Amino acid sequence: MADATKHALDDLIDALPPDTVITDPDVIASYRQCWSHDPNAGTPQAVVRANSTADVQATLRWASATGTKIVPRGAGTSLSGGSTGVEGAVTLSLERMRDIVIDSVTRVAHAQPGALNAEVKQAAAAHGLWYPPDPSSFEICSIGGNAATNAGGLCCVKYGVTTDYVLGMEVVLADGTALTLGGPRVKDVAGLSLTKLFVGSEGTLGIITALTLRLLPAPPVGATLVANFPSVDAAAQAVVAITASVRPALLELMDNGSINAVEDMLAMGLDRTAGALLVARSDAPGLAADAEIEAMATACTSAGAAEVFTTTDPDEGEAFLVARRAAFPAMERLGSLLLEDVGVPLPQLPALVRGVEAIAAERDTHIVLVAHAGDGNTHPIIAYPPGDAEAAARAELAFAEIMELAISLGGTITGEHGVGRLKAPWLPAQLGPDVMALTRRIKDALDPQGLLNPGVVLPAVLPG
Amino acid sequence: MADATKHALDDLIDALPPDTVITDPDVIASYRQCWSHDPNAGTPQAVVRANSTADVQATLRWASATGTKIVPRGAGTSLSGGSTGVEGAVTLSLERMRDIVIDSVTRVAHAQPGALNAEVKQAAAAHGLWYPPDPSSFEICSIGGNAATNAGGLCCVKYGVTTDYVLGMEVVLADGTALTLGGPRVKDVAGLSLTKLFVGSEGTLGIITALTLRLLPAPPVGATLVANFPSVDAAAQAVVAITASVRPALLELMDNGSINAVEDMLAMGLDRTAGALLVARSDAPGLAADAEIEAMATACTSAGAAEVFTTTDPDEGEAFLVARRAAFPAMERLGSLLLEDVGVPLPQLPALVRGVEAIAAERDTHIVLVAHAGDGNTHPIIAYPPGDAEAAARAELAFAEIMELAISLGGTITGEHGVGRLKAPWLPAQLGPDVMALTRRIKDALDPQGLLNPGVVLPAVLPG
Repeated sequence: MADATKHALDDLIDALPPDTVITDPDVIASYRQCWSHDPNAGTPQAVVRANSTADVQATLRWASATGTKIVPRGAGTSLSGGSTGVEGAVTLSLERMRDIVIDSVTRVAHAQPGALNAEVKQAAAAHGLWYPPDPSSFEICSIGGNAATNAGGLCCVKYGVTTDYVLGMEVVLADGTALTLGGPRVKDVAGLSLTKLFVGSEGTLGIITALTLRLLPAPPVGATLVANFPSVDAAAQAVVAITASVRPALLELMDNGSINAVEDMLAMGLDRTAGALLVARSDAPGLAADAEIEAMATACTSAGAAEVFTTTDPDEGEAFLVARRAAFPAMERLGSLLLEDVGVPLPQLPALVRGVEAIAAERDTHIVLVAHAGDGNTHPIIAYPPGDAEAAARAELAFAEIMELAISLGGTITGEHGVGRLKAPWLPAQLGPDVMALTRRIKDALDPQGLLNPGVVLPAVLPG
Repeated sequence: MADATKHALDDLIDALPPDTVITDPDVIASYRQCWSHDPNAGTPQAVVRANSTADVQATLRWASATGTKIVPRGAGTSLSGGSTGVEGAVTLSLERMRDIVIDSVTRVAHAQPGALNAEVKQAAAAHGLWYPPDPSSFEICSIGGNAATNAGGLCCVKYGVTTDYVLGMEVVLADGTALTLGGPRVKDVAGLSLTKLFVGSEGTLGIITALTLRLLPAPPVGATLVANFPSVDAAAQAVVAITASVRPALLELMDNGSINAVEDMLAMGLDRTAGALLVARSDAPGLAADAEIEAMATACTSAGAAEVFTTTDPDEGEAFLVARRAAFPAMERLGSLLLEDVGVPLPQLPALVRGVEAIAAERDTHIVLVAHAGDGNTHPIIAYPPGDAEAAARAELAFAEIMELAISLGGTITGEHGVGRLKAPWLPAQLGPDVMALTRRIKDALDPQGLLNPGVVLPAVLPG
């Protein structure tokens, strides 16, 4: 560490409570990676484990004074390199700030960013209330990271994404100013939609230090359906028919590859010849759930489903989802993974699936696909043998080509994981130069020194 | 008109198709006002009735070159002075751009900004689909204005506000650049949430020239409830109990003053002694609507309702809403109006209503209140004798004091109408200097000359 850097870091240590600035190299090393396992992750010079908004403010004031880059970090579960270490930067972890207060009359949760999504859900449930957004990682991802990435999940097809539940926040700007935006009001149009701008900004505009989240009454358990289709096209047909008339509480698709990967692991009797499997749920109240699930079953049969099972038993309903939830662990057994997150308008879903199959063949790499089908949001999972550099290179080519395919189909390179560092190079291809220029103008207006999460969304600005 | 101005206007006329630039003083005069009847409205030097995005771009390029202020205008139904004329500016009307194309498979509407909300609803309904947001003015307000103000309505308590349905847009920046943001994708987190930033920006950041709107399957007709309460507190108690367990499709409140104003006009047999009236609806599918409406009825009775009526008949359900819809015309008979739009967290609703009553007494002015009670969004309506300057001054004091009351209760000066020119002076009291400064930074980054809708949201910057 250069002397000037060390001297600057001493100032930060002095400005914060004891045991807040971590300089132990072994501990720092554990903050290099997020779940994306980016081989290009750097090593931060220090990690701040903030205890309070004041700690975040002090850290950003110091960063502004010294020109130090800051990487904000929640639970480190980013799949797009949103919180990987940056060489010489300070990683600012919010993991210690995890208070949750439920206001059951106003039906809001006041949560600090380090609280886990599952903890928010549990706290709400203790009052008979529900926080809907449910990323697959909900048991281990932080609510602050959810807001920073505008995280999605399974229920979004009916209940929307994180931004639909963020009524207000406290956010600290690059210069250390703490702002309160919005509040516990379902309707509030006083001023620009700043709360919405910070949701999904991936830590590039400010650090979220508190959230006010909208809660709903807990939904009924409902009814669940699982159906086998001869082809993805047939399943996609069913998805279109279902969503035209009812609002499923989830609507998930697995392709033949993911069915087989799960069957390899769990031997649960899935039909290995099926082209696709759909899982759907209705959470309409009372008997309406039965009626909705029957309407969905009819749509599946009309679209050519080979088999359709339905249940109103909650345990059996969860069992129907086991295969879907097992897709990711089943693929992890097959090697190193690159996890895609591309989305397309619903009618393009079959074309996307066919295109992904063609890319897998062309690049001689193993790709299976699961999808939040009702949203057109898919997760092609690319697996390759660990340590095989050539296979890794082919996998990365496939990763890029899938994004290019999604863009060519009028889609997006990321439906719910965020751009992070891994997908930033492809963002201009989706948004075009004018939208990138506007993005840069907003970034420069809020973070003129370019200190916040450099390299995420926008390319990092080189010093000088 | 000064010679230089006239010369500049000739350039604009040359740059646009024939009959696009209006300079007839009588026609211009009809563009001075919006529904807010701002006595301080100015007279534009010209009105552009754009036929296309290209016309909007040409107008803004000309405005940037000549430093001319631009006031965008949809159907002119703003209640907060969002589209009132500005002296010497050009009013840019989108009223001619009203194409609507429904993509029923993707379940989106592609709409030009001048299309009326009701026209979008009708076009969707022709495909069995539904565009939910329903401002009370839905038959006469434009979808572009809805997006610019993030308009609300009655159904928002269950279905959210306009921003929840705007998946994408085309927007023209101050320099004439046209951008495409978002698209027909329910989930898309590629880049900053720019679509969300423009929604609710009231024409101060750019001009929306096309919208991609999310549609839902048409909901069932459902069941409706009307209940009388001895006091607003008792009704508010019922609102809290109802929303804790079910999700009503609307939940409207009238206070004693609005009940009596409507009864004066319609003589429909309302109880003039009632402290408050609630109208609620369930649109749960099938028999679930009956169950939900019964649960709501029980909550009303437990909260002390004197009378509760329920119906599953659609016509009778609409009849229950007649009183609520008549509140505004009933008050119009009583004089000139100032229409408030303050919102508070739900538990503060009784305190807000009591405070408004106190202000009415103190200022010797007539105020009645209707509310989207499930949202905590209220419309105190202030009536005073036309032409009575002293009464008008007292009404304006009351108008200001109601906003200050809402802020003191943790609320907002505007829940769904927007800040416009009328409420801009009170915005800093709600947001504070740091949020105002951030707002200014974003405004300056996007509209450095301050050309777009000057005086709305932020104070107009004086030349020099």
